[in-house]
Amino acid sequence: MVYEPNNWGRFGPDDQRGTLNLLTPAAVLAALASAVTGQVLSLAMPIRGATSSAAPATIPHLRGRPLPQHFMSVDGGDYAAGTRPIGAGLRMADDAVVITPHGTTTHMDALCHMWAGEELYNGHPAARVRSYGATRCGIEHAGGVVARGILFDVPRHLGLDHLPADFRVPGELLAEICDDVRPGDAVVIRTGWPLTWDRSPQEYWSGQPGLSAGAGRWLAARDVSVVASDNAAIGGLNARQLADEGLEDDLHLILLWRHGVHLAEMLWLEELGEACAGRTGRDFVFVAAPLRIEGGTGSPINPLAIL
Amino acid sequence: MVYEPNNWGRFGPDDQRGTLNLLTPAAVLAALASAVTGQVLSLAMPIRGATSSAAPATIPHLRGRPLPQHFMSVDGGDYAAGTRPIGAGLRMADDAVVITPHGTTTHMDALCHMWAGEELYNGHPAARVRSYGATRCGIEHAGGVVARGILFDVPRHLGLDHLPADFRVPGELLAEICDDVRPGDAVVIRTGWPLTWDRSPQEYWSGQPGLSAGAGRWLAARDVSVVASDNAAIGGLNARQLADEGLEDDLHLILLWRHGVHLAEMLWLEELGEACAGRTGRDFVFVAAPLRIEGGTGSPINPLAIL
Amino acid sequence: MVYEPNNWGRFGPDDQRGTLNLLTPAAVLAALASAVTGQVLSLAMPIRGATSSAAPATIPHLRGRPLPQHFMSVDGGDYAAGTRPIGAGLRMADDAVVITPHGTTTHMDALCHMWAGEELYNGHPAARVRSYGATRCGIEHAGGVVARGILFDVPRHLGLDHLPADFRVPGELLAEICDDVRPGDAVVIRTGWPLTWDRSPQEYWSGQPGLSAGAGRWLAARDVSVVASDNAAIGGLNARQLADEGLEDDLHLILLWRHGVHLAEMLWLEELGEACAGRTGRDFVFVAAPLRIEGGTGSPINPLAIL
Amino acid sequence: MVYEPNNWGRFGPDDQRGTLNLLTPAAVLAALASAVTGQVLSLAMPIRGATSSAAPATIPHLRGRPLPQHFMSVDGGDYAAGTRPIGAGLRMADDAVVITPHGTTTHMDALCHMWAGEELYNGHPAARVRSYGATRCGIEHAGGVVARGILFDVPRHLGLDHLPADFRVPGELLAEICDDVRPGDAVVIRTGWPLTWDRSPQEYWSGQPGLSAGAGRWLAARDVSVVASDNAAIGGLNARQLADEGLEDDLHLILLWRHGVHLAEMLWLEELGEACAGRTGRDFVFVAAPLRIEGGTGSPINPLAIL
Repeated sequence: MVYEPNNWGRFGPDDQRGTLNLLTPAAVLAALASAVTGQVLSLAMPIRGATSSAAPATIPHLRGRPLPQHFMSVDGGDYAAGTRPIGAGLRMADDAVVITPHGTTTHMDALCHMWAGEELYNGHPAARVRSYGATRCGIEHAGGVVARGILFDVPRHLGLDHLPADFRVPGELLAEICDDVRPGDAVVIRTGWPLTWDRSPQEYWSGQPGLSAGAGRWLAARDVSVVASDNAAIGGLNARQLADEGLEDDLHLILLWRHGVHLAEMLWLEELGEACAGRTGRDFVFVAAPLRIEGGTGSPINPLAIL
Repeated sequence: MVYEPNNWGRFGPDDQRGTLNLLTPAAVLAALASAVTGQVLSLAMPIRGATSSAAPATIPHLRGRPLPQHFMSVDGGDYAAGTRPIGAGLRMADDAVVITPHGTTTHMDALCHMWAGEELYNGHPAARVRSYGATRCGIEHAGGVVARGILFDVPRHLGLDHLPADFRVPGELLAEICDDVRPGDAVVIRTGWPLTWDRSPQEYWSGQPGLSAGAGRWLAARDVSVVASDNAAIGGLNARQLADEGLEDDLHLILLWRHGVHLAEMLWLEELGEACAGRTGRDFVFVAAPLRIEGGTGSPINPLAIL
Repeated sequence: MVYEPNNWGRFGPDDQRGTLNLLTPAAVLAALASAVTGQVLSLAMPIRGATSSAAPATIPHLRGRPLPQHFMSVDGGDYAAGTRPIGAGLRMADDAVVITPHGTTTHMDALCHMWAGEELYNGHPAARVRSYGATRCGIEHAGGVVARGILFDVPRHLGLDHLPADFRVPGELLAEICDDVRPGDAVVIRTGWPLTWDRSPQEYWSGQPGLSAGAGRWLAARDVSVVASDNAAIGGLNARQLADEGLEDDLHLILLWRHGVHLAEMLWLEELGEACAGRTGRDFVFVAAPLRIEGGTGSPINPLAIL
Repeated sequence: MVYEPNNWGRFGPDDQRGTLNLLTPAAVLAALASAVTGQVLSLAMPIRGATSSAAPATIPHLRGRPLPQHFMSVDGGDYAAGTRPIGAGLRMADDAVVITPHGTTTHMDALCHMWAGEELYNGHPAARVRSYGATRCGIEHAGGVVARGILFDVPRHLGLDHLPADFRVPGELLAEICDDVRPGDAVVIRTGWPLTWDRSPQEYWSGQPGLSAGAGRWLAARDVSVVASDNAAIGGLNARQLADEGLEDDLHLILLWRHGVHLAEMLWLEELGEACAGRTGRDFVFVAAPLRIEGGTGSPINPLAIL
């Protein structure tokens, strides 16, 4: 299972240099041509951290995960209470965040995030993923992502508000929505599942719709660079918030592990869905710039769609 | 000191909705035209977190600031030691980061980061910046930034490796390097100062070169959207790591507070400097997507330059 | 509402020196005489932190609070995966904890934790409690606590496993259980409520039994040094996890704010209840040593009972 | 190297139950008899956390270690700025701490903190110390410590303010200071080294005095329960802040690993030294109550001496 670098820039087994971008310059230039109006949409959920209120719990997240925390280390309240300004009168606010991205906020997975057996993607030894961070396939190798984005708005195509929890999108349905997927594209799958959160967290936690293994293979065969979705795991989840597929059919293993396709999860796609519904093409410029966390298993991101 | 929203989209005193992008669609579309080769460069320093080693201290940072910490909550070592895989054999790595962005890593400042008196930018009350976060002018209002970027490589223009610690770039020097600055541009100032870190942290901490107040006013008059630099505070710092200017001339107050210009600091500009040196134009597409931290005073970013 | 230091050592309005112990030496010496067998019991719940599992959620806590997180920064798994030992062969494990004590773990409240109006206990200005920590009445002033402990095992006295959620212990009931309460004593109130957690977190969150305002006044009148309980707030809580009393009758205000009585909450008292049931006296040596967190609003503790 | 539980309660190879106290009840009762005046001294350094100031860096610590951080999540400043009280007028302050105890603050080591080869103390497999915490020999097994404390004030015995950086205390010198060491005693070694911090952190970091291997063996032979010191590593450190001894002579391996003796480091012993200098005996009641962090490699503590 050794992949050669391909025409959009995927790194090979001996290539562990930090890439500057996931795609080649030519692919980037082609991607930029997808912008028509210049409207920019954020595809991220807010990071609502607080420690003396239930604020973080009001954002869709997997049950039991440590939610983002946000602390102000100096703020306007301090000055109201008498803190002296700096120097001639300068005042400042400063803060800190504690983030565990998987399952709690919009993020991109590093290639070291999941595997089976003793080897990561492309044969890199899993034993190099240690407490100090991953020295193979960490998120710093993703570079930036500037790619042509394609929205697959599955519920809208089916006339639904959102997919039901047990829906697994077949590859045929993806093909029906758009068969013009090219190597290096960033494929964005809308399930609409985050809409259930406002009805009740319990409904959100009752399971999640996602891609079928067949859809994963269909995408891998088209050599996409990124698969992004508004669900938590690209594939679906059962009521215990676990993937049900066997090793052969697990979506993370198919895409991330076997084919080196980066995954982005927990996006917010409602405005993008609306915007793409009212236009001819469904492609746009997809930009994601994961933080350069050395050895990180992922990074919170604020993905942008330039329409 | 009340600003009207301008033609690149700056928000007015009564506008606290989350913007989707700092610039208007037309400005974004114009900016994309600056891409020529499609080469993408990351302008971020790595985030090197670790808690049992001195790793974080090897990245340029302001002395005494709490450095990024990175923890693996499950990793390949655990499996090597006998941890059972999930389900049929799936293995995963998971992690968390603790980040205080100002002074420690590449980041963008929110408009609530600095002020004088009782009011933030555009008259928003500073008392709304509290321990739960800023309910005015937080980083989530910056949206994404897709703008035309212009590099001012000051040391290269002067034939130096880097500017000396006490150098304050005059406005005239900026004008000499490039006078074609347009409203909404993202201006990127290279000082080269991070190069001193490898010689010694003590040299890095001995002070920092930066913009003069005159240069700040020159940029504000041109109505730029973002000023970014590889130094820690846009303006210069003395050996105590403080800005020396009075309130009237402080760079954060001129740009961020009086004119609503977002600031990005501690960028890594060495590759960009090299790349721009060998090409005719010095403009490119500048993209930054701060995390949507509600009420945050800033966000770590991985800014991209698309050449 | 200005208190004079009393015979067990309570600090007065002008006394902000770090105390070395909450009680006077004579009171400590008298307290040590309560030890009969030398058996030592921990009165703390475990701190079960983890970030890739639901472990922390298995310990009683108030709903929505940020649970303790525990990270290993180097561990045995790393060596199993090939990390080289230090020097000649030394191996080490290192870790970090993130703790928000109130509502999540056994802890002691500082005198700055709650107040009404503009003043803390003994007239100290509340405006001195800022983002850098409290410069008045922080937990570092509690010193150590070595006191005579008295267990009030209310459910056992009533023949119950635990008190019901809406039970508010009247002062008369305390008097009936033990009327020999002396100045400086550490009074420990068992409600048994943590036993409900194992049946279901939902039951634990349905409300909490606690002291009535009358019981609070009864204890304050006896000039105790510490009131500790296995519930989360000394007083009771309703289903929204809030105290229902008005300002006059709020237990934190009666004890902590008006009388400078330190409070310890979320203790584990099952073994102590058993042990005291089978012995003549119900007094013991109570020891608590809050961490010297400067300006802290409280500290996690591991209180000890020496029988 | 399998130890049998001894008469002060050390746990054997098959005993992984949480102990309630490190010592047996009889030993505790005997220890309490050492109290003469009832004066209680804290032996902890303050935890000075803050993230917008250099406060934490003003406390002695090993260079490069992540310092404690302390965040207020709601404080008096917020109310000064207009935050509404809870309910009828209740105000509260809440906070969080991030602590990496080793090398940064007064703490106790768990038996899983250091080892050589594949086994922890008493043959427990080192592979059970993983990212979720240690399931063998974690700090929660230390229980509380109530023991007879003996102060060895080495610099005072030698007529010095503090020991020099390269001083390694020989066993003979301990014997000369006090030969009445009994099984289960908590031995407290004063080096005076923290006094150098106020002169300069650089002097503090230039090395550290500590016990010699011979002193370690002398203490192990006397079957003490705890060795505590005001230095950072019980043994000495060189200018690179590492122990210089080989595996056979390493103090952590001699005491913690081979003999199951708990270590407490970075204590503050100046007041205790003064107090013991002016009294006949040098024994006292030593109490330490490590937080019950499940699987922790140590815990911050506030050790108490009851004189």
